[in-house]
Amino acid sequence: MRNIKLTIEYEGTAYCGWQWQAGLPTVQGALIDALRKLIGEDVELSGSSRTDAGVHALGQGANFKTDSGISLYNVLRGLNFHLPEDIAIRHVEEAPLEFDSRHDSKAKTYIYKIFNRQQRPAMLRRFAWHVWKPLDISLMSEAASYIIGEKDFASFMAADAQVRHSMREVSTVQIRRGEDGLVEIEVVGRAFLRHMVRIMTGTLVEVGMGRIRPETVAHIIAAQDRRRAPMTAPAHGLTLIKIEY
Amino acid sequence: MRNIKLTIEYEGTAYCGWQWQAGLPTVQGALIDALRKLIGEDVELSGSSRTDAGVHALGQGANFKTDSGISLYNVLRGLNFHLPEDIAIRHVEEAPLEFDSRHDSKAKTYIYKIFNRQQRPAMLRRFAWHVWKPLDISLMSEAASYIIGEKDFASFMAADAQVRHSMREVSTVQIRRGEDGLVEIEVVGRAFLRHMVRIMTGTLVEVGMGRIRPETVAHIIAAQDRRRAPMTAPAHGLTLIKIEY
Repeated sequence: MRNIKLTIEYEGTAYCGWQWQAGLPTVQGALIDALRKLIGEDVELSGSSRTDAGVHALGQGANFKTDSGISLYNVLRGLNFHLPEDIAIRHVEEAPLEFDSRHDSKAKTYIYKIFNRQQRPAMLRRFAWHVWKPLDISLMSEAASYIIGEKDFASFMAADAQVRHSMREVSTVQIRRGEDGLVEIEVVGRAFLRHMVRIMTGTLVEVGMGRIRPETVAHIIAAQDRRRAPMTAPAHGLTLIKIEY
Repeated sequence: MRNIKLTIEYEGTAYCGWQWQAGLPTVQGALIDALRKLIGEDVELSGSSRTDAGVHALGQGANFKTDSGISLYNVLRGLNFHLPEDIAIRHVEEAPLEFDSRHDSKAKTYIYKIFNRQQRPAMLRRFAWHVWKPLDISLMSEAASYIIGEKDFASFMAADAQVRHSMREVSTVQIRRGEDGLVEIEVVGRAFLRHMVRIMTGTLVEVGMGRIRPETVAHIIAAQDRRRAPMTAPAHGLTLIKIEY
């Protein structure tokens, strides 16, 4: 038995998220289909992060076990042949049998992109949220400092999420301005709650617009109540950049 | 009578190029339709650059004349409301009556993007050409030096192009490597022949792969014969960045 680890890039626009769902287009489903065509068997594919519908990835992690003797090179070439054009395998490697993408992931890096300018974007509209009101990056960075650390993030969790507890550790929240009105929010943590990065982004944007004060973010988190946090930022601005094991 | 100048962004994927063609989706056609809805009249819209089918733009220029008293702000907002989501107006201003986008353009900047890595891209596949063979950037830069200047570029012109003469001046060809295997070729000139930037890119890529020597590019240009130059790079890697007047 072998354990094969994949690094996957995808544009999430056309998918109902990572997680397999009967009869719906999902990234996990497309990968399982491509693996069936390639090695002629159904595999169990474990993914590092359950990205939402519309969220993209440059470095999603996954692994599957197989008895097939197929070479790693042929897994890479064969999957890229069978997969649709909006999913691509970036890297393939052999992993120890006990390795599991989901449980062994130590850090996840996400970047949320915002086009902060009056006119809507056209070319890269699928990859960034358009926010026309000017954002104050220094206020947002101040607010971000209240997010860093190990905390109960119940306020930044989708109302319907089912988890044992909502303690999570966020190690980095970095906000930077690029060309053409682009604002990027880079977030790193061991694991995130459902919608956590998007609710966090929605909250930081409210701060950037001057609607709430940076220190209010500390109170929102302390309340441990989703109803205290502002809107969830749209999925299409979010990209899973990499997974560290 | 007023003369109104537009700066336009678009993703070219869905269009048969800039130039209006009966019954086909074109960027110029979509703009004329949106202007008709907004100001209730048919306008003649002059564009700075006739981008090919599939080519993108961040800063295409255009202008139209009208007797309408509509404010510039309402032109911007109204066009962005009526246009499809893959076309957006970035800027609107009043121009002198004699201004013409096509004839008064002094310099055009294009960037051709290449993903130079073994694995095909997924996320930004619409905006860059995938070249898997490693490219030698220093050889390409050496070859680029033979392109700079005022020359007869008949070798870099689509076989079916109809022009009075094929003398053109190229002021910049700059090649740089970015993240994730990205290679960008920035080209600046007063005007370009049909397919010129794409044939130039195809030629530079042949040099980068070691198939032809940098100095051969001088001979290809001197031959003034399209059959001497290599393949035309695909349209989807090309973006018109800006127009200077």
